[in-house]
Parts: sequence; structure tokens; C-alpha cells
Amino acid sequence: MTFLSESDFLNFINRYFPLIHPNILLERGDDCNLISSKGNLCISSDLFLEESHFSRQYFSAGDIGYKALAVNISDISAMGARPQGFLLNLMIPEDLGSDFWANFFDGMSQLANHFDLALAGGDISRARFLGIDITIWGNINNRCLERKRCRSGDVLFVIGQLGLARTGRKMLETGNDLFGSLEAIKAHLRPRLFVEQAVSLSDFSGVRGLMDVSDGLVRDLPRFLGPELGADLLIREDNIHPEVVKYATSQGCCPVEFALHGGEDYCLLGCADKGVMSELKAYFPEFMYLGQVLPTPGLKLSGVTYQSDGFDHFSNMI
Amino acid sequence: MTFLSESDFLNFINRYFPLIHPNILLERGDDCNLISSKGNLCISSDLFLEESHFSRQYFSAGDIGYKALAVNISDISAMGARPQGFLLNLMIPEDLGSDFWANFFDGMSQLANHFDLALAGGDISRARFLGIDITIWGNINNRCLERKRCRSGDVLFVIGQLGLARTGRKMLETGNDLFGSLEAIKAHLRPRLFVEQAVSLSDFSGVRGLMDVSDGLVRDLPRFLGPELGADLLIREDNIHPEVVKYATSQGCCPVEFALHGGEDYCLLGCADKGVMSELKAYFPEFMYLGQVLPTPGLKLSGVTYQSDGFDHFSNMI
Repeated sequence: MTFLSESDFLNFINRYFPLIHPNILLERGDDCNLISSKGNLCISSDLFLEESHFSRQYFSAGDIGYKALAVNISDISAMGARPQGFLLNLMIPEDLGSDFWANFFDGMSQLANHFDLALAGGDISRARFLGIDITIWGNINNRCLERKRCRSGDVLFVIGQLGLARTGRKMLETGNDLFGSLEAIKAHLRPRLFVEQAVSLSDFSGVRGLMDVSDGLVRDLPRFLGPELGADLLIREDNIHPEVVKYATSQGCCPVEFALHGGEDYCLLGCADKGVMSELKAYFPEFMYLGQVLPTPGLKLSGVTYQSDGFDHFSNMI
Repeated sequence: MTFLSESDFLNFINRYFPLIHPNILLERGDDCNLISSKGNLCISSDLFLEESHFSRQYFSAGDIGYKALAVNISDISAMGARPQGFLLNLMIPEDLGSDFWANFFDGMSQLANHFDLALAGGDISRARFLGIDITIWGNINNRCLERKRCRSGDVLFVIGQLGLARTGRKMLETGNDLFGSLEAIKAHLRPRLFVEQAVSLSDFSGVRGLMDVSDGLVRDLPRFLGPELGADLLIREDNIHPEVVKYATSQGCCPVEFALHGGEDYCLLGCADKGVMSELKAYFPEFMYLGQVLPTPGLKLSGVTYQSDGFDHFSNMI
């Protein structure tokens, strides 16, 4: 079955997302929606495009719907905020029928329901390839956790796994999961989110900044530190997920280096006063100590200068 | 010149849009931006895709940048609200260099500066075709003007021109402006916006509802009225822009019918208590009386039942 009209398609969406929701003031379908804000709102928008961000070769329709929303939720978490709702713009190629869209909206609405997000509105258009563009907004808890707030001597940490999604992607690309890397594959298709952890982090006054790692730690860390500071990373192989270690080793790579170039980790990268580290470690089971902030720019790995690039949307063209 | 990296491109954007602005709380470049809201915010998001929404055959880069933002501003006006800022997601094909982008951002920033809009953030990605996705937010004046607020007997009106952009598009498509239709061409490439008019309309308590006409009046009017009501349109040829009349007549079309199927008019369609009409007419030079709301569904043209379809993104595929 295909959709005969725009309103057919919009009615189909309504099966998965309620027209009204406590986080929006208007029913979906007007020129805009209205958001009632009790304080500052954080807002972000991300593209999720076929061939650039996902492949239909190994993403099911449900995975695409899920991940398109997940990467946006991750941006809200990266501020220590709680997601409230989103706008959905769809670029729709002609070859996709209602089976695809049923699974797509099923995957997306699973996640939306889990975090009680409103679908506020959006736009649809025919296009030559499948693309999803989501804008998400969230409420700040007590304060917003920004980038570039580190101080020399601070502790760096992540909540989540480095390199796991990259491992999963490699398995999916080769179509050959030699190692039974189920967690890695899941990390790539349906990344774990750390919404509650992010909100809790904003309650610790010693936590100074937060971001989400999407282009690989070696690329994102300098963005987090800003141009004045550097870091010494003290990551041991036993900090890395065993599926990453197994795959990297099989490829003759150093598992720690492989993990540092992750990409699409969607884990949280934070910095905190070192006095709060033991508290954080006790509070968050996913806490992983990364190293410490240095007073001068540049990355070190266990004291040795480290130089390498991460992912760039211009230089790493598909 | 082409861009060597993502940060090259982002630095280029910074030449056109300030990193900080009174309408945003953070510098562009974090995972989210922060909006300080003093009341309810209205928010909307629109796609503007090559081949679906514009053609590079007759849109200059500056026109594309201008119109991508204009259609979003129109959505905010449609609520009687004032635009504050936007997020910009770009799908970037490889064949476009810095000359293109200089003109693109020049066109877009002209409009952003005119309305004092902040560029809050966004996303960029390589893609197979050029696409712009903008999310815009605005502040409600004293109240929000929604769709489906008409009552039987209300006056219907538009602020702006019907069919003018369609005339311009026809000229541009054929590449042959036989009639010197300069206003029509401008209406298609750089549509006029009615921000101040929209905000002022929300000050008239007799004005009940508002929307912007984007898919042609015959298609948008039923959306505005809702399923319970209809309208009798009393439009005379002398209400239609002379460039529309001239073109429609040359094609053997009725100018009024041609105008009703406009598409991309981006004029404001409103309804008001009939007692306020003379005031509105005196206040807004662009006011055009359309007709009146009927208690039963269906459109009439000067009392005669009228049936026709407008633009549908699914059935009118390119």
C-alpha cells in the first residue's frame, strides 16, 4: 500500500503519535506549535540522511526511526537537560510504502513514548533519497552544562562506551559478525541514551561541563576543552568494551586507539572538579575515568603526545 | 575555492551571522542553544529542497538563501507572532563552492538582519542534492492566532496577493517573461513577508484566526475553516494583481480561478468578526476582502459551488 495524499500520510503518523500532549499547547497541524516554557529551553536540530548517516542495507525501518530521534535526544542530554518534544521533517523517496513507514514510526514512537516526548509538528516532502530532520527541545534542570568549561586539573570522564558503535558499524558493513558482537551492533543501530544520568550530572555542582561524543573522542575532546587547554588520557584496555577489544585486536589495531576514534558513540563526555570524582564513580555505574585536563593545548595518551584526526563531514565524504 | 573541512565551512557562516545575539543565551557551537522565553514560544520547521521547492535554473544562490528563511518567517507570522531566531540544517552537494555559499548566506542574512533574527545553530552534511531545513521560533504578541477559529458569518480576508508567485513561477519556468512581470517574479523568488501586519492583527480582538497560504487558497482555505464550515468567495478580477490578470488571460484562464490555485503565495489568510472589517480595511493597505464563512462545508465562488484541488506533495510529484 502507498499513500495517496499528504493528508493520508499525516493521518498515518497520527496513529503513532498523539495529536495532543501535555508538552505542547496546540494540536499538531497548525502553522506552528506552541510551547509553554517555564524557564530556559534548549534546542537543537540534526540531519539523518541515507548514505551519509545510515544505510538501508543494514538499518531496518524501525532502526532508522529510532536512531534519527535518538541522536537528537543525545544533544539535549549533552546539556544536562530533559527532552520534551520534537518536530519531524521527512524527505520521502517514492519507493517506500506503508510497511516501511509503519516500522519506521514504530521505532521512533517507542523512543518518544519512553521519554514522553511530544511530536509537535513538522514537514514532509518528496525527495530523491530518504532523509530525516529532527528538531528537539528540552527543559533545563537547574543549570545548563556547556562545552569549554573545563579547568586545568579537572577530571575528564565518559558515561557510556567508546568505540562500541564503531565496532558494530564495521560488523554491519562487512555483513559478517565473526565475534557475536550483539552489543556493538545494537550500539550502532539503536544507541543507548543517558537522559537520567545527564540530568543527575547537572545536580553535582562539581561537574563543570558536558557534551555528547558523536565524531569520535579525539575529534570531540578538543571541541570540549576549547583552544586553551589540553588533556592527558589514561585509558587502559580493560576500560574498553570486550567486543571492541576483540574486534580491534583481530584487525591488528590497538583497542584503545580504535575506541578513541569511535564515531557515533553518543556517550556523554564530562569534566568535573577532581574532588567530586569518587562521588560520581559511586553514583553512576557507567562512569569511566578518562584522564585529566592539562593547562596547554594538545592531547596526550598516558603522557605521550598523541596526534590524529577524527571524522569530518567534508573530508570523509561517502 | 572549496571548503577543506567542516570547521572551515562553519567559520565561513560566522562571517554572515554573529555568534552571539540578544535572542540566544549561548554562542553558536554547543550541542544545543538556549532560548530565554518570557512566555509561550511558537515553533515551526520547514524543508526547502532542490527540485521539490526550488530550481537552480532560475533561483540564484541568494534567492535560495532568502526564500528558505522567508517561508519559515511566514509560518511564524501566520500565528500573529514575531520571529526571534532559527536553526539551519544544510544538505550540501559537492559541486558548490564558496562563491555559491557567499551569495546564499548574503541572501539569507539580509532577511535575518532585517527581522533581527539570531542564527542559533544547526547541522551540515554532505548530500546528493542541495537542501535547506530551517526551524524557526517566535514570541507570541498578546495571543496566538490559530486555524479553525472561524464562525459562520465571519469575514474572510487576505493580506497580500493571490496568484502572483504562481505567475512568477510560470514566467521563470518558461524562461520567457513576455509581460514584464517583475513583481510576479519577485513574489516567487523573494516573497514579501507580513510580520508587522501579523503582529498588528493579533491586537484586533475581532480577528479570530490566521494562517499563511502556501499550497493555494482552494487547498488551504478548507484547512483554515475546519471540517464543519464552508465559505462563499466574492473575488472580482480587479482584486487580482494586474500581472496575474495579464498572464492568466494570455493562457485562456480565468484570472480569479488562476489566483485561487496560487501556491507559495505566503500571504496571510484571516477571519474576523464582520464588525471589525472596516477598521481592518483602513488599517492595512494590503487588506483584501475575500468573502464570508458559511455554516456548512464546501466552497462557493460568488454563490456557485466550486470544486477543485490544490497542491499535494504526494500527488504532484516532480
